[in-house]
Amino acid sequence: MILHTRPGDIERASMEIIARELEERGVCLPKENQAVIKRVVHATADFDFAQNLRFTPGAAEKGVRAFLSGAALITDTNMAAAGVSRPMLEKLHCPLRCYMAEEETARLARERGVTRAAVSMERAAREHPRGVFAVGNAPTALLSLCNALEDGLRPALIIGVPVGFVNVTESKERLWALCERLSVPAIAAMGRKGGSTVAAAVCNALLYTAADALDPKKRGWG
Amino acid sequence: MILHTRPGDIERASMEIIARELEERGVCLPKENQAVIKRVVHATADFDFAQNLRFTPGAAEKGVRAFLSGAALITDTNMAAAGVSRPMLEKLHCPLRCYMAEEETARLARERGVTRAAVSMERAAREHPRGVFAVGNAPTALLSLCNALEDGLRPALIIGVPVGFVNVTESKERLWALCERLSVPAIAAMGRKGGSTVAAAVCNALLYTAADALDPKKRGWG
Repeated sequence: MILHTRPGDIERASMEIIARELEERGVCLPKENQAVIKRVVHATADFDFAQNLRFTPGAAEKGVRAFLSGAALITDTNMAAAGVSRPMLEKLHCPLRCYMAEEETARLARERGVTRAAVSMERAAREHPRGVFAVGNAPTALLSLCNALEDGLRPALIIGVPVGFVNVTESKERLWALCERLSVPAIAAMGRKGGSTVAAAVCNALLYTAADALDPKKRGWG
Repeated sequence: MILHTRPGDIERASMEIIARELEERGVCLPKENQAVIKRVVHATADFDFAQNLRFTPGAAEKGVRAFLSGAALITDTNMAAAGVSRPMLEKLHCPLRCYMAEEETARLARERGVTRAAVSMERAAREHPRGVFAVGNAPTALLSLCNALEDGLRPALIIGVPVGFVNVTESKERLWALCERLSVPAIAAMGRKGGSTVAAAVCNALLYTAADALDPKKRGWG
């Protein structure tokens, strides 16, 4: 049966289905991570993410606070950037940057004989050292970010959700070990799964929560 | 262990892992659909797509032929558009359009009191009636496309892979029944799963195969 309802109603109905099915599966989500996990399940229709999303202590709240203070959001691909809510970014005055497809990145990568992913993360780390970094595609970008962490980078949050079969699981495990050791806030999808859709969904969950916190009618961490 | 290899090597290694694990699962893919299914599994790390992707007879080959003749590709979201290979589109001289986020679409939707998804698919059907339509997000866009099919639209191919919990499964079942009845080529991800990543991966598989067919060293359907 096709329901003819408004987008807001459809989203509410979807979230109710997700909550009910999580309960049926016996999954009990920590309150502080619910908004992120449910939005990722909503964006993928894949309940595996209720199991494989991992958060350092307070990571979601730290991401929300970063966006409330106007932190820059850096994505590894234009596709992830395209999935992030423009109205929320504007409301919170958060700039959005993706260096991967820029001509300057390609030029530097050619000159130095390194990957564009490495150059784009180096540029991002230099220009927005306190930003939120979302990597949904390239494990090479995440590994470059790991190198930058070892060199002293301390971003507001790293969202590490690349997808794939080669270097992906390993890149997330390296990220996780580093972030735990260095107390850098991180949200990661452990294992092979992830993607630009997941990266954008995590960002949107944090952005919506931040925007709600600005709204006196909806105060709270949603 | 992190492999330090070139992107082409990583993709080959990934495709070998996917082929091996499909075999281990006892999944035997029809040769003509292999390129699409493997690329979707590669983009999502989700083997469910080996089961839920459905093709009308010859749909993949018809999509390849459409791109070889320079068909326009229309996506429902900018996110799906961002995931499609620009170099392949340029090589094949295929235009790419997404009407959803255009001001003209928003204006018409407001004036007529209908959704932007509906307006964007109407505009696409009028301007590119023989195009390839890829819907990765909005079931409303797919339902509008179904209405257009009933009104006589005969596109080169419909890629129907919206994702979600409300109206999604139903929209794909309606598409499927219509495409079978009207002999319109279609590739759909049945059930809840799909998304912009899946839409882009299906398009890229067809575009790569088309580009290979132009290359005398790689002739064939990949």
